[in-house]
Order: sequence, then C-alpha cells, then structure tokens
Amino acid sequence: MAHDRRKPLLRALAGETLPRPPWWLMRQAGRYLPEYREVRGRARDFVELCLTPALAAEITLQPVRRYHMDAAILFSDILLVPYALGQKLEFREGEGPVFEPIEDRTGMARLAPANLMSRLEPVLDTVARVAAALDPDTALIGFAGSPWTVAAYMVEGGGSRDFRRVKGWAYRDPDGFAALIDVLVDATTAFLIAQVEAGAEIVQLFDSWAGLLPQAAFERWVVAPTQRIVARLREYHSGVPIIGFPRGAGLFYEPYVAETGIDGIGIDSMVPPGFARERFDPRVAVQGNLDPVLLVVGGSPLAAAVAELRREFRGRSYIFNLGHGVLPETPPENVGQLARLLAEPV
Amino acid sequence: MAHDRRKPLLRALAGETLPRPPWWLMRQAGRYLPEYREVRGRARDFVELCLTPALAAEITLQPVRRYHMDAAILFSDILLVPYALGQKLEFREGEGPVFEPIEDRTGMARLAPANLMSRLEPVLDTVARVAAALDPDTALIGFAGSPWTVAAYMVEGGGSRDFRRVKGWAYRDPDGFAALIDVLVDATTAFLIAQVEAGAEIVQLFDSWAGLLPQAAFERWVVAPTQRIVARLREYHSGVPIIGFPRGAGLFYEPYVAETGIDGIGIDSMVPPGFARERFDPRVAVQGNLDPVLLVVGGSPLAAAVAELRREFRGRSYIFNLGHGVLPETPPENVGQLARLLAEPV
Repeated sequence: MAHDRRKPLLRALAGETLPRPPWWLMRQAGRYLPEYREVRGRARDFVELCLTPALAAEITLQPVRRYHMDAAILFSDILLVPYALGQKLEFREGEGPVFEPIEDRTGMARLAPANLMSRLEPVLDTVARVAAALDPDTALIGFAGSPWTVAAYMVEGGGSRDFRRVKGWAYRDPDGFAALIDVLVDATTAFLIAQVEAGAEIVQLFDSWAGLLPQAAFERWVVAPTQRIVARLREYHSGVPIIGFPRGAGLFYEPYVAETGIDGIGIDSMVPPGFARERFDPRVAVQGNLDPVLLVVGGSPLAAAVAELRREFRGRSYIFNLGHGVLPETPPENVGQLARLLAEPV
Repeated sequence: MAHDRRKPLLRALAGETLPRPPWWLMRQAGRYLPEYREVRGRARDFVELCLTPALAAEITLQPVRRYHMDAAILFSDILLVPYALGQKLEFREGEGPVFEPIEDRTGMARLAPANLMSRLEPVLDTVARVAAALDPDTALIGFAGSPWTVAAYMVEGGGSRDFRRVKGWAYRDPDGFAALIDVLVDATTAFLIAQVEAGAEIVQLFDSWAGLLPQAAFERWVVAPTQRIVARLREYHSGVPIIGFPRGAGLFYEPYVAETGIDGIGIDSMVPPGFARERFDPRVAVQGNLDPVLLVVGGSPLAAAVAELRREFRGRSYIFNLGHGVLPETPPENVGQLARLLAEPV
C-alpha cells in the first residue's frame, strides 16, 4: 500500500479514521518548558514576544522538536487582534496585560480597524518562518479568538468573575454590541485568511468564554459570528479545515457543531466521548479531551485515561488533544510519556 | 375555594403548578443592600458575622422585609463546615478567607470531626431566630455546600483557576480523596439535619464547582455523595424538600436530576427551559434561571426575560430564581422591579 503523503492531522480533519490518532496540545508551547522560559526572558513583555518573529517562531517549534506532535500551533495570543485594532494595553505588575475597557459604542470609536493587518504583519512573518521550518509530516495551525471571547476581554479589560460588563452591554444595547461583534468578525476573518496565505494549513477558533451565555445569546454571539467567519474563510480558501473550540458550551455543543460549518470540534473535558460519537455529524473530526490535570499527574492515571479515550474514539475521525491548555505546572517528562502512549498501537 | 395554607414554596416543591411562581434569589441577603453593609461593619470578619446569631438573623431577614420573597435563606457560608471541622482559616487583605490547604491524607489528620456540631451551634441559633420571626407564608431555607465543592475549597485553600490540586488528588489517589468526601458527606448530613431541627423547612445543596468534572468523576464525586446525603436526610426528615444546585453541570444535569433523588433542581442560566421541561422528571420542581446580569441591567430587558421565563415554565412546578447569586453591583430598585413583575398575573 502506498504511503498517504497527506499529513495525518489533515487526513483526520478530512474525516479519515487513522490507526493512531494524530495529536497536538493546546498551549503546547509555553511556560511548562524550560526552553520557553529562556526565550520569554529575551522580550520586554508578552506582546513584544508575540510580535518578534524570530522569538515567536522559535517558541512555536520548541515542543515539536521535543515531542514530535503532528502539528505546531502558532505561538501568539487571541488578544493581539484587539491590540492591533488599537485598543490600549497596560502592563500591571503580576497581572499581565490589561486593556483600557471599551464599554459602549463611544468606546468603539477609539478603534482603528484600518491599521489591523499592518500591525499584525509580524505574526504573518512568524507563520511563514514556522511553515518553512516544519518537517513534511507536521501541520501548521493558525488561530484567532472568536468574536464573543475577544469582545469579552475588550469590554471587561481583562478576565472577570461574572462578565457583567460585556453581558450587560449585550443585554442593554444588543445592536450596539452587534457592531463590536461585526468589527471582530471582519478582523478575525481577515487575520485568518492572511495566516493561511502565510502558510497555516488549518485554523482554530478559540471561544474560551462560550460557556457563559444562555441559549439565545449563545446563538447570536457565538454561533452566528462563527458561521460568518467559516463561510467567508471558505470563499477564500475552500480547502483549509477549520476547528471550533467553544469551551464550556455544554448543552450547546450539539447546535454549535450542527450549525457553524466547522470541520473539527474541540471538546472540553466535560463532554463525554459517547455524547460526541452519538450527537455530532460523523464528518466532523472530534478533537480532545484529556483533562489537563491528568497531564500534571502523569503515571498510571494518565496511561489509563489515554487508553480509554483512544478506545472511545476508535472507528471515528479523531485528533488527540487536551480539554483545555497545558498547565504551567506540567512536568515536561509527562508530555514525553503521553507521546510514547500515543505512538503505541491501541 | 379554601385558601391552601401551605407556603407557596413548599407547594411548588411538592410538584404543584402555581398561578404565580414563588420566588427567592440566591445571595438575596448581601452586599447589594445598604442595610447589609451596615450590619457587616459590626463584625470583625466574615466568619464572625456568620457565627453571631443576632447579626446573621438580621441579615437573613433584610431582603424579605424589603421585597417579600417567598423564602428567606439562612445567611451563612458553605465554608463554615470545613472551618467547624477544624481547618485553619487565614484572613488576607482584600482576598477574604483563605484556608491552610489540605492536600492529601496526612492533611486530613488535622481535622477534628467530633467538634463539628458544637462549633456550628451559633448557626442553628440563627436558624431558630429566623424561623420565629418569619411571617406564615414565608419559608425558611437552610443549606450547605456539596462535598465536592467544599472539598475543592479545602484542598485549593480558596478559589482556583484550574483546580489542579483537588482534581490532582482525586486522580492520583481516589481512595484517599474518597475518605475526605466521606467526612464531608457525614458532616453535611449532620449539619442539614440539625438545621431542619432548628426550623429550616427546605434545604439546598450548593455544588458551585460541579461543572469542572468529566463524566466519571462527576458520577463519583457529585452524584454519589449527593445521593447519600439525600437518602440519609430522608431517613430523619422525610418531609423536608431538598433542592440540588449543580452549577455548570451542563450535559450532566439530566443524570443528576434522575439519580440523586432531589425534590427541586436549581438550574444555571445556561440550561434552556425547554431542555428542563423535556428532560427532567416532572415531579422535580425547577428553580432558576435568570442571568444575574439582567438584574443589574433592569428595565425592559429584565421585564422581557422574566416574562419569557414565566411563559416557558407555565404548567410546570417552578420556582423563580436567578441562575447564580445576586451580583453586588445590582441596584436594589431592580429587585423591587422584579418583585412587581412576579406579582403580576402572566
């Protein structure tokens, strides 16, 4: 039998069932790796790190060199889009970046969408560098935050316990909030198209705060904007698979998969594999969903959970991943253990 | 027709459909009320406030005096159980109480379950004072945290972003962690039985972190301990309704309702009313689930959402509540607006 020369991750996203699931990990490049911390120290702050192609490309490649995942994911941050739209960032000691919040339509007037792509140019340079450096079996994943999640950061100014500012705006003035979402749909689409043109072969939309919205709001602020991004990306690059990750969507995972048009669905650790098998279109590849805490624990609990996940998804297009990002406390040797487990036949 | 002399909340929990849904609000006594902030200032710290019956009873009664909800809920905190079990609390500036974490079986040896009920005596005094002061239509709700959620605080020492310590223990040493859960099942059951004996007519189990667990862990650490508490409480007080609130349980709400034996189910704002109607046993009263942010917003978005919820649950046993606690930023007049909306016929 001739060797299929397409990359394993692209085969899974085309709906194929592979004998060994392709894998990568959300936040596979990051603080748990000593070589990351070394490079991190060379930039003044996190935004500079993301916008310095030599450093960002090096960080993107680090985990792939160590563990040979089936994909590298661009090292970047979902907050670069609002940054590039002109929202002011402030660095507070011990807190990381904090935005000057945009709380209403007046605040939106301070954004300058026309400058978006020129300010994101260094990210595209990073993509091109990584694409040139990867070996022929390793895919390159580009990404962006979804409009709802990015809007949440923009309106709250950072993280939040209750997200009352962004939800308050959406409830009080839905048409005004829709204008912000529209700006983000356009910006996200343009950014993803440019990433593909620079060499990304797959894109993932991170919707980290999808789990905060009641049904009608989920439909309007998560599903509909995702549909628009997917449809427009397809017009430009019909062959590029799109993975959606509506973290915490719970009861709304099913409509998200059915309605958005994505090719792959990232599931968090609270989605039972049996539910995914029964309720999601079999043409949509499932990606997930090991609890990241198990990667901190390692040893036999990790081995048992990985075997269980592989059994559950046998006979279905499947990409092994975590249900959320790698935790900074993860011992690097546990990722090595995971790589060996995934290399074994089931 | 003779006036049914049972309290409206008890009638709803017995499965009756009422023309106007009874209502109360999670955290209805709290920081959004100026009279709360005044009383709060009379205690040195939050634990002292909870353990001073005159103050805690006064705070419990404040919202009922203003708004005439159908229930008062004991002003207390789920962390009083670990405190009464002997876990050391520390007060850090601007952070609230922080526990000295219990991270393994060795840490558990520092607990002293034998002193539990004597240390909780003041809470029972509060219950008795409130029971004596309430008018005949207003029910009194007692409560406790569920073992999983309380264990999460005990092991993490406070809140957490990733809950890696508590989940790590549960994955690494499930039998050791089960011993902690067993201590909490016993303590919670004893505490709830005592609250009922002091005058509580309904009890609610708050499982605020139920949404963090994958399926097997949810069954073991949320469903099974809740079943045990419900069964044992019934042996002592068969007529006292029990409401479970597994916040964020998403796809696991359905097994939670089917398996725990509760009389009422608190739903967060991400559970669609249609899902609750179709999937939950009709004998289980549904309680919820207005987004608390809508109570901050007020006005016509609040009115529309309240009308919608009442329409959705018409013809089913239903208790109006929020999907999570009242936010401190809630204008008290919006709670007044809500009370008026709920007094209107549908």
